Amino acid sequence: MSISIPRGTQDILPGEVEKWQLIEAKARELCEKYQYQEIRTPIFEHTDLFSRGVGDSTDIVQKEMYTFEDRGKRSITLRPEGTAAVVRSFVEKKMFGLAGQPVKLYYMGPMFRYERPQAGRFRQFVQFGVEALGSNDPAIDAEVISLAMNLYKEMGLTQLKLIINSLGDKESRTAHREALVNHFKPRIGEFCHDCQNRLEKNPLRILDCKQDRDHELMKTAPSILEFLNDFSKAYFEKLQHYLTQLDIPFEVDANLVRGLDYYNHTAFEIMSNAEGFGAITTLCGGGRYNGLAEEIGGPETPGIGFALSIERFIAALDAEGIELEVNQGIDCYLASLGEEAKDYTVGLLQQLRLAGFSAERDYLNRKIKAQFKAADRLKAKYVAILGDDELKNNKINIKNMATGEQVEVDLGSFVQYFQGLKGEK
Amino acid sequence: MSISIPRGTQDILPGEVEKWQLIEAKARELCEKYQYQEIRTPIFEHTDLFSRGVGDSTDIVQKEMYTFEDRGKRSITLRPEGTAAVVRSFVEKKMFGLAGQPVKLYYMGPMFRYERPQAGRFRQFVQFGVEALGSNDPAIDAEVISLAMNLYKEMGLTQLKLIINSLGDKESRTAHREALVNHFKPRIGEFCHDCQNRLEKNPLRILDCKQDRDHELMKTAPSILEFLNDFSKAYFEKLQHYLTQLDIPFEVDANLVRGLDYYNHTAFEIMSNAEGFGAITTLCGGGRYNGLAEEIGGPETPGIGFALSIERFIAALDAEGIELEVNQGIDCYLASLGEEAKDYTVGLLQQLRLAGFSAERDYLNRKIKAQFKAADRLKAKYVAILGDDELKNNKINIKNMATGEQVEVDLGSFVQYFQGLKGEK
Repeated sequence: MSISIPRGTQDILPGEVEKWQLIEAKARELCEKYQYQEIRTPIFEHTDLFSRGVGDSTDIVQKEMYTFEDRGKRSITLRPEGTAAVVRSFVEKKMFGLAGQPVKLYYMGPMFRYERPQAGRFRQFVQFGVEALGSNDPAIDAEVISLAMNLYKEMGLTQLKLIINSLGDKESRTAHREALVNHFKPRIGEFCHDCQNRLEKNPLRILDCKQDRDHELMKTAPSILEFLNDFSKAYFEKLQHYLTQLDIPFEVDANLVRGLDYYNHTAFEIMSNAEGFGAITTLCGGGRYNGLAEEIGGPETPGIGFALSIERFIAALDAEGIELEVNQGIDCYLASLGEEAKDYTVGLLQQLRLAGFSAERDYLNRKIKAQFKAADRLKAKYVAILGDDELKNNKINIKNMATGEQVEVDLGSFVQYFQGLKGEK
Repeated sequence: MSISIPRGTQDILPGEVEKWQLIEAKARELCEKYQYQEIRTPIFEHTDLFSRGVGDSTDIVQKEMYTFEDRGKRSITLRPEGTAAVVRSFVEKKMFGLAGQPVKLYYMGPMFRYERPQAGRFRQFVQFGVEALGSNDPAIDAEVISLAMNLYKEMGLTQLKLIINSLGDKESRTAHREALVNHFKPRIGEFCHDCQNRLEKNPLRILDCKQDRDHELMKTAPSILEFLNDFSKAYFEKLQHYLTQLDIPFEVDANLVRGLDYYNHTAFEIMSNAEGFGAITTLCGGGRYNGLAEEIGGPETPGIGFALSIERFIAALDAEGIELEVNQGIDCYLASLGEEAKDYTVGLLQQLRLAGFSAERDYLNRKIKAQFKAADRLKAKYVAILGDDELKNNKINIKNMATGEQVEVDLGSFVQYFQGLKGEK
């Protein structure tokens, strides 16, 4: 009996994996330009980290985590997102004491949420994210947003929409929270069970509820923007000024919320506007979380970041019909005729590869015709043909597959011949 | 209270992570030359896969797996190694039916074993591995070995030792197994409990026992090499012929075993000979597993591969005192004097970055002197200084940090100036 892949996960195979490689390489390249450095945290963490760092009241922590006991009876959890662990590392490794501030980090890797699998939603998915810790300058909020936007743009996406909002500072949020409670309390009985719980714990999250989103009180709920104090207002205006300076169009949406206490000021999402992209259009989400490091046991530290899923990135590329350039063909296929020649190509192949060329030979004892077929499949630019006779004379034939031209060269100068071709380009 | 990283795992931080990036980039580059394509399988699999694909009698399956029930009550396991999942995918995705054979794949990612943490041994570690499925040509065994060897060599390692052995085909192994049973049976009472179990189940694994390794019967145990039939002998000789042709020195060690039934013919290990490398010197292990695809529910398929740990790779580089070139400094640090100038650098910074330069500015409202310090820390090649006065005159100063030279250029041609510098190199 054969064994299948776990439900909600996928294998990424050759032919598809190249898209991932290109996106990831571009992300790394941009991070280098923007001076974000990679951090790699473990796949699993102590469960506590996410209860505190993602929030006990969230769906993620309540319903979607892969939590289990290890052989030492500790509760560990496969990470459902990347920020909590980066901040945990920032605190544990005392990065707040480093000379170079702010600390600008990026991560890339699998995350895990036990959700109902559906088109485009997986239980294991890959996120790329950045975190900038230690600065309260709205210019770094703009930088973080521009990094995400430019990554999408440089991969070719054009149908993008940036939504921003401000959640204000603590004072602003407290005032807003009070207004929300007053707004919903009289009719909270008409809302779902979850929302009734949220009313006292975290009324902001009511605005996020999928079940009650059509309730009339949702439309008339007081907006955070009316409650921003002067500092928060100035911060938000400065961010908008920088985005304009960076030529990044945006819309303000007061309903864009992040429901945890330690989120504040900037919140943003990037969506795909592409036709037929599907119901969930969010590609990337991010925001400022000045209280998170403290929540995890560190000193008060301003922070902002985003996370984006590579799966949705690829879906957006597909929706816009953008084909990434992959598989440009190998440099040389080494065909052979006869036992001794075949044997000899083992060494020749290695010479080519170590000189920097992609090269292949036959490993199935195929006839010459089938070898040429294999060369075609690999889109070989050149096919070198070695027969037992040529080998005796120390010669080898090289065929340019684009022009059909064929030359005979000395075996001893075979690799040099390819190096010469490269020089011509 | 702060939250710590799970025991036996590590954060890989800037300053160290660059080594990982360099090794991984080189591995990807070599795989492209050698025509191995990436495959990404999930972090966890159904537990069955490893019971069958790694083997019920192994320490890994018996003692070291992170196994748990997901919310759907399925037993899943964090992958302890990479081969089983690659072969699972090969079978499930019917890659045996692809036109391009053999199927040559590589993977790179975290693996998990619940072992006692110790120097250089982690519960989460990263493996790079390749698998070539579908060919029985000893030349591909040589190719697989040469890929690993060349990866080490191209990163600068010189103190390497390659050990090879043959486990023969089924017939050879059956004969050897019988001889082993006859050898150990009379005195099996003197061996550990595990070995007593192994005697009937898998006597080959007795040779692997750490507890009984000094027992006199170990030294006189019959060698597999005496039991190779003609086909197996010819296969092994051909492999050695190819390794010689590829200029790869090796030693034959008849005690190198892989204790599972579906391993056969070629087995190999690459060790570090570097002084002070520590007790465990194995960097890379691999071998042929012609029976594995069948075990997992697929058709009989020849296969060979290796796996190597990046952690040990880096330890070997350290042991040989090889420093990888990292952090060559950023192209430009944008210093500013005055509010308006500071504001203006937000856009300037983006222009530089999108033109392909790594660039940074201050996000902590620092004085000019502190900005220069930050530029030094980032090893900036140039520092551009913009004051409110220069801004009014549309000028900016650029200082070459190596020569101390300073020029003033028009703000409008700022990026072109850097592009010009690039052209000069």
